[in-house]
Amino acid sequence: MKAKNIYLSSKELDEAVDEFTACLKDYFDNYKTEEVDTALSLGRVTAGPVYAKLSSPHFNASAMDGIALDASVTFGASERNRVRLFEGKDYLVVDTGDPIPPQHNAVIMSENLIETAEGEVEIYSAATPWQNVRPIGEDIVQSELIIPTFHKIRPVDIGAMLGGGVNTVKVIKKPLVTIIPTGTELILPGEPLKEGSLIEYNSHIFAGLIEEWGGAPYRYKPVPDVYQDIKSALLKAVEDSDMVLINAGSSAGREDFTKDIIRELGEVITHGIAIKPGSPAILGIVMGKPVVGIPGYPVSAYMVMENIVKPLICNYLRLTAKPWQEVEAISSRRMVSSLKNKEFVRVKLGKVGNKLIATPLTRGAGVVMSLVRADGILAIPQNSEGVDAGEAVNVRLLKDLEDIENTIVCIGSHDPVIDLLANEIHYQNQKLHLASAHVGSMGGIMALLRGETHIAGVHLLDEVTGEYNISYIKKYLGNKRIALIKLVSRIQGFMVKKGNPKGIRDFSDLAGKRVSFVNRQKGSGTRLLLDYKLKEEGIDPAGISGYQREEFTHMSVAAAVAFSNIDTGLGVYSAACALGLDFVPVCNEEYDLAVPVDFLEEPNIELMLETIKEDAFKEKVRDMGGYSLDRTGEIVLID
Amino acid sequence: MKAKNIYLSSKELDEAVDEFTACLKDYFDNYKTEEVDTALSLGRVTAGPVYAKLSSPHFNASAMDGIALDASVTFGASERNRVRLFEGKDYLVVDTGDPIPPQHNAVIMSENLIETAEGEVEIYSAATPWQNVRPIGEDIVQSELIIPTFHKIRPVDIGAMLGGGVNTVKVIKKPLVTIIPTGTELILPGEPLKEGSLIEYNSHIFAGLIEEWGGAPYRYKPVPDVYQDIKSALLKAVEDSDMVLINAGSSAGREDFTKDIIRELGEVITHGIAIKPGSPAILGIVMGKPVVGIPGYPVSAYMVMENIVKPLICNYLRLTAKPWQEVEAISSRRMVSSLKNKEFVRVKLGKVGNKLIATPLTRGAGVVMSLVRADGILAIPQNSEGVDAGEAVNVRLLKDLEDIENTIVCIGSHDPVIDLLANEIHYQNQKLHLASAHVGSMGGIMALLRGETHIAGVHLLDEVTGEYNISYIKKYLGNKRIALIKLVSRIQGFMVKKGNPKGIRDFSDLAGKRVSFVNRQKGSGTRLLLDYKLKEEGIDPAGISGYQREEFTHMSVAAAVAFSNIDTGLGVYSAACALGLDFVPVCNEEYDLAVPVDFLEEPNIELMLETIKEDAFKEKVRDMGGYSLDRTGEIVLID
Repeated sequence: MKAKNIYLSSKELDEAVDEFTACLKDYFDNYKTEEVDTALSLGRVTAGPVYAKLSSPHFNASAMDGIALDASVTFGASERNRVRLFEGKDYLVVDTGDPIPPQHNAVIMSENLIETAEGEVEIYSAATPWQNVRPIGEDIVQSELIIPTFHKIRPVDIGAMLGGGVNTVKVIKKPLVTIIPTGTELILPGEPLKEGSLIEYNSHIFAGLIEEWGGAPYRYKPVPDVYQDIKSALLKAVEDSDMVLINAGSSAGREDFTKDIIRELGEVITHGIAIKPGSPAILGIVMGKPVVGIPGYPVSAYMVMENIVKPLICNYLRLTAKPWQEVEAISSRRMVSSLKNKEFVRVKLGKVGNKLIATPLTRGAGVVMSLVRADGILAIPQNSEGVDAGEAVNVRLLKDLEDIENTIVCIGSHDPVIDLLANEIHYQNQKLHLASAHVGSMGGIMALLRGETHIAGVHLLDEVTGEYNISYIKKYLGNKRIALIKLVSRIQGFMVKKGNPKGIRDFSDLAGKRVSFVNRQKGSGTRLLLDYKLKEEGIDPAGISGYQREEFTHMSVAAAVAFSNIDTGLGVYSAACALGLDFVPVCNEEYDLAVPVDFLEEPNIELMLETIKEDAFKEKVRDMGGYSLDRTGEIVLID
Repeated sequence: MKAKNIYLSSKELDEAVDEFTACLKDYFDNYKTEEVDTALSLGRVTAGPVYAKLSSPHFNASAMDGIALDASVTFGASERNRVRLFEGKDYLVVDTGDPIPPQHNAVIMSENLIETAEGEVEIYSAATPWQNVRPIGEDIVQSELIIPTFHKIRPVDIGAMLGGGVNTVKVIKKPLVTIIPTGTELILPGEPLKEGSLIEYNSHIFAGLIEEWGGAPYRYKPVPDVYQDIKSALLKAVEDSDMVLINAGSSAGREDFTKDIIRELGEVITHGIAIKPGSPAILGIVMGKPVVGIPGYPVSAYMVMENIVKPLICNYLRLTAKPWQEVEAISSRRMVSSLKNKEFVRVKLGKVGNKLIATPLTRGAGVVMSLVRADGILAIPQNSEGVDAGEAVNVRLLKDLEDIENTIVCIGSHDPVIDLLANEIHYQNQKLHLASAHVGSMGGIMALLRGETHIAGVHLLDEVTGEYNISYIKKYLGNKRIALIKLVSRIQGFMVKKGNPKGIRDFSDLAGKRVSFVNRQKGSGTRLLLDYKLKEEGIDPAGISGYQREEFTHMSVAAAVAFSNIDTGLGVYSAACALGLDFVPVCNEEYDLAVPVDFLEEPNIELMLETIKEDAFKEKVRDMGGYSLDRTGEIVLID
């Protein structure tokens, strides 16, 4: 095993960016330009001031439908002393935009005319010279500045330029950014999957971001982890483009060649930045052009794109990066962070009551879904050890605040029905969203207690009464008025491989390590059910192979059974169906939504209730299998 | 002369939009969809829920560089009781992302290994099962919801979809919006100008906006004002596309055919909306598709696009229109508004001291430059008679607030040097802008008095001392500490046509109506100069042809002389040069920037001073002609 080839530095983000920018001064000063059709210049950045070549209007024009005349013929006109005028001799009929002939200097609106005969009108008030006339250049005067240098062209700018006779415009060329994915394990989307292979999608995320920022992305096919191959690809990319991103190989492992290759061809300015995720980034310069080594995990890569590559592109285009929109929120959890790094935590945001609550999503750098699900990013400064629960924090928005404020927050147990409901609610009401976090039934109860969620998905069996949910709510939320919205009755059971090869029939089959098992996390209703049943049957958890491995959703358990050598796990029928597993039923349980009574009258919750009661929704739940909907939509008040 | 063919209604905006939307219910429910490559789906809107087809990772993968093993072989390891392990027998060397073979269930990071020999390591702490392993589906579980219906696809969504094996995605088809410019006077950009012809640029503004909103614009060539021609064009457009915009002909003049044509082919829902600019809009339906008649003036057209067409496109795409960002500002002027309409006033915004000041731009609907220059739009409600000076108002931002806050506000007299300075400042400092409003020297003094501007361009001749500016500042701004930044000394004179055909030599030539004149507005330094000279020479203003016609800038005066039958106007040499006019000098004057002493130390003003003193700037001023720069950049404190 080859040792790490070098330790990474831990440069502060701002320092790294400033230093890199300074090293690239010549590069930024020598941006390329091109002349483009004004009509096709939307979003481009001007490379010089744009002056009008024509005046607009380029003649004195009527601003109204009416008659053009010399104002002096109207002097003295009044209600009591109307003045009669004759077409041709005194006036010319004009429409808006028509030229005013040189002998005329005013327009009277047709509303103010009394037509006495064909070609003959009377007026009852005098015109002032130049009334209702748009003088030459009223809008744009030839040679006037229309838009300045380094201005991002908007639709109205295109109109003004064309109106001012400017039919082509000199703009900064979009920087061509070549993306080189590296890694022997990478395959293209659609290629057959093998164990160990990884679908290369980072380059597509990069390309989308680069496009949004105004650059021109170009993606190479994946290059295997071979020093010479990566080196050739980089050389060609640097020659052909304005900026190069090498994805992965930026850390310090045995196959991380990026740093050595950049050093061989040019210069490494920084290797290692004090941000998390994203620390093993490389900032290099080859042939005067920036080359950025970007870590492989998608969230790390995203943070390096946002924090390193975006400023590069903005600088090239001479644009100030659009500032993040920030909001103040209350952190719902303690988040510990190292003093080594500035940490970017993806959070869900929810407006519960009048508080905006920020709940951290998984901090794993490999989970691209944490970015998909995130409403915002909370940056914990490098000199901070973290954030306390209840602390006010600034969150950079990834979504519109209005969307977040129209989101029903659902924290608690997971059931695939919740995902279906989320989709259905937004389908029925474009302005409404439902966002769920899966922390188990007890986690949902605690979120209600702290006022961090609108609703909580719960399925908690009272071992004494055999009743679901009510006793837990009374015990933990006794001082709040809570209702249950009955959602579904569902079947829990053992998910097993097709044909149930290990012949699993009940809990006793888990003992003795004959079968491998995958568990749910503590606090989940399913875990409580398991532990209750094991106790009831006197089975020692320590004797169960896999009891320690915890997954957070039914689907993750199903995936472990379906795609690895795990034999079984406890979960709902619909999850087993979804992945084509067989299923051994254990019991029926009530899956309800607990909700503070006060929220029942909120319009968003009312809309959710409507969706739950609709046949379209129920039909789709039935199609998933394993649910009964006898009481769906019923409201049970708990005293 | 044909009378107006019908009176317009005056429907409230919201009512008009709601009614139109209701009439189009079937249309919106039957949006078209298409399947596109996921990699090319940026910005598109999903037409259904997107579920993962594969898990990611699709095998248990190492989350670290290190060794994979069965955790049980490490049990009991400690600092004092190291456990020795052998490659092949006990462990497998893995890199991040490598698959974990079925017999293994944990990874130890290479940092925590002591290599004792080739193929042999010692460890000093036990591994827990599943540590540093990314289980199957950690990121995405097959069949899991990745993004819901009616979701606008972002770069990270593309990554997650590709990672989840979703290589094509069903999206809403971009609505094809055909734009039909009508008007016999319209010519295409680049075609030769004739008197009365108008360059057709509205369709380009529309196309840009439609693109930004997610539609697919298609522009027709201009159609002349011929009923049958417009009708045929509309019929074809409705057949081929999802939405049609007819530009101009939407009012009620003699050549306004749009309404009659829509009525012949379909239905007119609304003609006339209570907004200004933009009231003569037509909302119609032909063959079940929306047809919008849009007024001809560019600002009217823009308001109808924003208020009518944008909601149509957003509804089609099932997106909530991104809310305007609003800020509170102080109105610097009284703005009277009619109770007949909701009025949209374009404003410049400036952060002066700690106040955000909103100053109205021209309210002329024909001035597209008012949209180009605007920082925001102030909507005066229909039931309001206007806004008082000093009143707090909400302004919808058209630019980033950060850009506005980094803008030096310059209100006062106009000189072409100010435009040059504005461009140069932004060229030198990408974050800094200079925005000027041209209200004459006295207007600038008053803006300083009210704290509405950072600097004021002034050239005010003291008739007694012959000195410029100082006595006016002492008189009107005596209680403030003001400094003058010397900008240029410039030549004022008569701008005359090439060869000076009327032989104008001095002010006495203006008398007697032998020559036609164009004046500057009251309060401008140039007007004060004129009136001073006329008084000095005993010339009666009433005897000057054109004394009443007022223009607001030197360039507008120059344009009147250059392109119409006006013989002369008073202005600066550089303006005459820009339009190729001849020039009869009258006097030299000092054009200075008055600035409160407190602002002199503000970083933005310091940056401006640096630019003013730079040779590059001075060089460009000299190139304009007619300026002397002996004292440029000097600061004169006024006690």
